[in-house]
Amino acid sequence: MVAGGTQGPSTVPGVRMKELSERSGVPVASIKYYLREGLLAAGHATGATQAVYDAHHLDRLRLIRILREVGDLPIARIAAVLRAVEDEDLPLGDLLATAHHALGPEPSPATSDGARTAVLAHLRAKGWNVSEQAPSLDVLAAALDAVRAEWSSPEVGPDVFDLYLEPAFTIAEQELASVEPGFGRSATVQQVIVGTVVFEQALVALRRLAQEHHSRRRFGPADPR
Amino acid sequence: MVAGGTQGPSTVPGVRMKELSERSGVPVASIKYYLREGLLAAGHATGATQAVYDAHHLDRLRLIRILREVGDLPIARIAAVLRAVEDEDLPLGDLLATAHHALGPEPSPATSDGARTAVLAHLRAKGWNVSEQAPSLDVLAAALDAVRAEWSSPEVGPDVFDLYLEPAFTIAEQELASVEPGFGRSATVQQVIVGTVVFEQALVALRRLAQEHHSRRRFGPADPR
Repeated sequence: MVAGGTQGPSTVPGVRMKELSERSGVPVASIKYYLREGLLAAGHATGATQAVYDAHHLDRLRLIRILREVGDLPIARIAAVLRAVEDEDLPLGDLLATAHHALGPEPSPATSDGARTAVLAHLRAKGWNVSEQAPSLDVLAAALDAVRAEWSSPEVGPDVFDLYLEPAFTIAEQELASVEPGFGRSATVQQVIVGTVVFEQALVALRRLAQEHHSRRRFGPADPR
Repeated sequence: MVAGGTQGPSTVPGVRMKELSERSGVPVASIKYYLREGLLAAGHATGATQAVYDAHHLDRLRLIRILREVGDLPIARIAAVLRAVEDEDLPLGDLLATAHHALGPEPSPATSDGARTAVLAHLRAKGWNVSEQAPSLDVLAAALDAVRAEWSSPEVGPDVFDLYLEPAFTIAEQELASVEPGFGRSATVQQVIVGTVVFEQALVALRRLAQEHHSRRRFGPADPR
């Protein structure tokens, strides 16, 4: 899905900081910050105060930029994703799960354990292969708690979300079918992060717009204003 | 969908502030704030410094609470929704659109007009009856801009979201079919706000969990960890 981040690397033999900044779209000050934080390996020294950077640096910078700007991730989570990218023993499926988990919210202590256990069991019973650590389970459990509270119905179960299971499953299946792993682990993560975040916003917006359409159709008037 | 907010009103003849707080779940300090801001009409005076509140007050307080706590709306937007609820000449479909629009983000000046025009035209061509003012159009346009930027492909059109149109349309149709307008305008708005916000979180979480499932299925390993 992502065109960027896949052509550059093999054509960059060794460039100075300034050119690295231009090619990656990351300001020099940010590159220096990533070097200090250890997110980016040091360049190859060509003198006492000079260094050059290669295709690997450019690739990592593009990934860091997407994790920051698109994924809105804090530095510690970016570091975790980068470690998973570097760990070639980690299967690609697990790397992508790591990236997905990094996108997720911090676990909320307000969410009831009961709701979390219930939603996980429900999904597994439906054949979904999801890990216990997935932060989206917290989001789903919090939604279940909210439904129970707003409806004053503590007995509501995770099947209240069944309307969404099949569409979500089918959408994700088609999305993953379009993931092209041939450009390497970093490019695949970039593709998945962009796909997850940007198309999620589109899906949410489209559902609300469709609700507006059906609201008008059911409760009038027919014409938009 | 929402059980709360529909039984109480007819059984509350006139109660003091303290009881109003208990029945609505809204703290006394917040009730006083809403009175000062004009979100809530003054009570019926029973003495120089005493007043009682009726079913209408309780109903409005429940709506305000849901708009604040579930919808996370600022006071000015809550006031706009309340005015639409009170305006009996406004068709219910338009009232619900008003509530949907209040939930939406502030228009982003960064979004390109071209993208916004393109997504609106695309949806209308598909037969979607959405108004030009819908904030979700800004979200969708921003997503299109993001896709164009990340893929370095300015020619990408709104059909890039076509995978999501049919599921979003079908989901919203089923959601609106479950809306029960018989309990009045305020209760219907409460139901739609809770449904829109809470189930949106569930849909987003389920898509990410399904992505994790399909990531593992395509790229291994098979077992969750």
